[in-house]
Amino acid sequence: MNGAQALIRTLVASDVDVCFANPGTSEMHFVAALDDVPEMRCILALFEGVATGAADGYGRMAERPAATLLHLGSGLGNGLANLHNARRAFTPVVNIVGDHATYHKQYDAPLDSDIETVARNVSGWLRTTTSTEALAADAAEAVAAARSPRGCVATLILPADVSWTEGATPAAPVEPTAPTAVDAAVVRSVADALRSGEKGALFLGGRTMREPGLVAAAKVASATGAAMLGETFPARLERGAGLPAVDRLSYLAEFAAMQLDATRHLVLVDAKSPVSFFAYPGKASDLVPEGCTVHVLATGSDDPVAALDALVAELGATDAPVAVASPARPDRPTGPLDAASLANAIGALLPEGAIVVDEGNTAGLFTSGATAGCPRHDWLTLTGGAIGIGLPVATGAAVACPDRPVLSIEADGSSMYTIQSLWTQAREGLDVTTIVLNNRSYAVLDMELQRVGAEAGGPRASAMLDLSEPPIDFCALAQGLGVPAARATTAEELVAHLERAFAEPGPHLIEAVLPSRL
Amino acid sequence: MNGAQALIRTLVASDVDVCFANPGTSEMHFVAALDDVPEMRCILALFEGVATGAADGYGRMAERPAATLLHLGSGLGNGLANLHNARRAFTPVVNIVGDHATYHKQYDAPLDSDIETVARNVSGWLRTTTSTEALAADAAEAVAAARSPRGCVATLILPADVSWTEGATPAAPVEPTAPTAVDAAVVRSVADALRSGEKGALFLGGRTMREPGLVAAAKVASATGAAMLGETFPARLERGAGLPAVDRLSYLAEFAAMQLDATRHLVLVDAKSPVSFFAYPGKASDLVPEGCTVHVLATGSDDPVAALDALVAELGATDAPVAVASPARPDRPTGPLDAASLANAIGALLPEGAIVVDEGNTAGLFTSGATAGCPRHDWLTLTGGAIGIGLPVATGAAVACPDRPVLSIEADGSSMYTIQSLWTQAREGLDVTTIVLNNRSYAVLDMELQRVGAEAGGPRASAMLDLSEPPIDFCALAQGLGVPAARATTAEELVAHLERAFAEPGPHLIEAVLPSRL
Repeated sequence: MNGAQALIRTLVASDVDVCFANPGTSEMHFVAALDDVPEMRCILALFEGVATGAADGYGRMAERPAATLLHLGSGLGNGLANLHNARRAFTPVVNIVGDHATYHKQYDAPLDSDIETVARNVSGWLRTTTSTEALAADAAEAVAAARSPRGCVATLILPADVSWTEGATPAAPVEPTAPTAVDAAVVRSVADALRSGEKGALFLGGRTMREPGLVAAAKVASATGAAMLGETFPARLERGAGLPAVDRLSYLAEFAAMQLDATRHLVLVDAKSPVSFFAYPGKASDLVPEGCTVHVLATGSDDPVAALDALVAELGATDAPVAVASPARPDRPTGPLDAASLANAIGALLPEGAIVVDEGNTAGLFTSGATAGCPRHDWLTLTGGAIGIGLPVATGAAVACPDRPVLSIEADGSSMYTIQSLWTQAREGLDVTTIVLNNRSYAVLDMELQRVGAEAGGPRASAMLDLSEPPIDFCALAQGLGVPAARATTAEELVAHLERAFAEPGPHLIEAVLPSRL
Repeated sequence: MNGAQALIRTLVASDVDVCFANPGTSEMHFVAALDDVPEMRCILALFEGVATGAADGYGRMAERPAATLLHLGSGLGNGLANLHNARRAFTPVVNIVGDHATYHKQYDAPLDSDIETVARNVSGWLRTTTSTEALAADAAEAVAAARSPRGCVATLILPADVSWTEGATPAAPVEPTAPTAVDAAVVRSVADALRSGEKGALFLGGRTMREPGLVAAAKVASATGAAMLGETFPARLERGAGLPAVDRLSYLAEFAAMQLDATRHLVLVDAKSPVSFFAYPGKASDLVPEGCTVHVLATGSDDPVAALDALVAELGATDAPVAVASPARPDRPTGPLDAASLANAIGALLPEGAIVVDEGNTAGLFTSGATAGCPRHDWLTLTGGAIGIGLPVATGAAVACPDRPVLSIEADGSSMYTIQSLWTQAREGLDVTTIVLNNRSYAVLDMELQRVGAEAGGPRASAMLDLSEPPIDFCALAQGLGVPAARATTAEELVAHLERAFAEPGPHLIEAVLPSRL
């Protein structure tokens, strides 16, 4: 058995049985070994950003890692932005990067680079395996690291000769570290603060954004009057009718300040203390209001849901009433297509159990509100701010959950970073409906140009935000990549296209033509 | 004047007046300043790999740097693969990466990362500018570093507040370092070796691959009988009728070994000692034959053309006859379209003064031979092995040389890494003709799968090299991005489409449907 074969067997034994791949020459033994280990499903991408983003989407939904297979430092570079997003989402990913044979490194061949340097920022665990004997054990450790309580990208660099040499043996799974135990003193101190009579708020993130965490948080809110806020860009938020609703902190610091106004106790639960996404001249970066004490109930290394449960017990709130979202859908919209009618069309039609991937940016502003009372669904967002995550995450989520419909709400500018995803969706027959919100602009930058205080309005500056010349024909792009597509210019057309896309299996793309923001 | 305005004025004063950009919020002041400094031409890309690859193509042809404008570490990540190629091409590039405001870094906001870490591998010069006062001087130094004798990627990291703060002054240009003087003793020693009667070869690379270097090398070859070999993947090779021809070392080590067989003296002139592109089980990585002495006449830090001229003088070969390629074109091909007829169509029609960007990979194997006697042209290749360079380099080359036709010969798999380039070509009305060689496979990997000795032929392994399901419709993709396109399934159709594309201004894409390699 060669290294590659032992590696794949080790991954499968550790419950990693999906690999999103862009292989090259140095990865050919891994590819050849796929025929020896049919339990591993290897999914081809046309670009590494698709592979890494799909691994993120898969990990968020499957709650176990997929592997990637990338080609040397340049392939890793192409996948880096979406690994950054996965890092911010704390998604478990086993990131396998091929390298030149160990003895070939000295020659500095054209594709050579220092892969560890490129990998460092995004990797919670990073190792170059240097011998065929060590490879399988390294792989088992990588999986365990990825599956640590606070998930991470575990990068395993795999030299070609380590992969092709014979004499390897698969390794048994390694148990991930356990979460830190709940600290009763911390729980008491938080309970005291929330019972103090001063205005309190829970700030939820990470793994608290699903039903068990949300229900516990809702009991705390019910018993103490604390607000229930959530991080701006959750990796995965369970929501919809019957679930407690969480008020996500606004991306715009001005609105976030209103949400946090007068709060005296901000309790972080698997969330970082809120800061402005970008800095703006003359505005504060730290969003915690003056006079507010920040309490850390639990971090991602702890068990944040157990901590919330302990807080509920400490507060005697086990039987406190839990406020949940009521079932409600907007009517099917008619008339012009704009951000509001688009949101209403989605709210009117979102299927039960849908996975919504939201990279709608400015044009998707109302979609969250319009779906708050829809049947239960998951909402996945751009955690790290590196645009181009939506289509790949939707791809990976559909692989993880083949029985659930995926709706990908995608801004035009962002979609063009990883449009190649559509081909993988077609190749794998994934049930993903993509709506591209085409306002022919980087509209968020038009807003930001004003917000940073830059002297806007010059024609040369505006041209840098303008995607109208030439107009991008997203239906042609989708068809070119094997995905059926339709264009909606009215709300009625969008409703009709959405109904068809949700009814038919396999991928679809709808280009929603929206008013230009420039 | 704010930092951004002073930065752009400094760049323009240093003869950097083109910027390939993918800006985000932290770069909005740079964007706003474009209206103040109309001498700077800012060209928008839909993806950073397009921007960095275009800067590479521009620098190779203009012999002066373009700037890039990238958004934080993730934007840099997206552009990293083509900066790797630029590094291997020794292309001068001023790589500007926006960052969060200096005081915002401490908050580890979602998009934050250690940009210097990501930039390190590809940057010959790297600095984070930390004050508005220092910015302009840093920029002038970056330009000088990029323009050093051995060109490099000079990365300037630009925090948002450094950009937006007032009180900046433009800086005067900084003179780049001069090349190292030619060492007469080295020249004599090389001359002695080549006069020894033992088989010698010049191995040319970098800046020697243009007329002055090639003519000098041809005189040396003529006077001494030395072979005239060139590196496998030159950044820019001048060739065609009337110019000395250089025999590029084969990508396949087996063929390269034949080219170097029995060579006793290998003289490196701005080229690295030849090594195998990848390692293969049981095969040597070092291609220098047993018993061959490697001489370094000049590196890229020297003046390699002056060194060749000195060698000519030392050999008394100033008036030696110079063998040049004779004018010759293949006939216009007819019949089935395959790698040979495709090459002949290009050879029959290549316009005088064309810039050929060659990322044709396996399907483009015969194009070099078929164009050897064409009117004089430049040939640009994939220097660093990171696929996805062709369309961006063609884009940048067309910006640098608006009066010359650009022919981009592009493999189907590679094209999908940076297909977004077509939109920039349409937006800027660039005269680029792209031929996508569509064999519906990663055919090079089919070959490599055999060469690395992997047990090939399993259906799951083969599926990873197969791009036929779904088939990619490149004409639809081009039209979706605003570029007129046509499909050729016969040699006659390819000839007709090429004639039309060369005759009409602006970008065109031709999908050449070739036999599948799988």
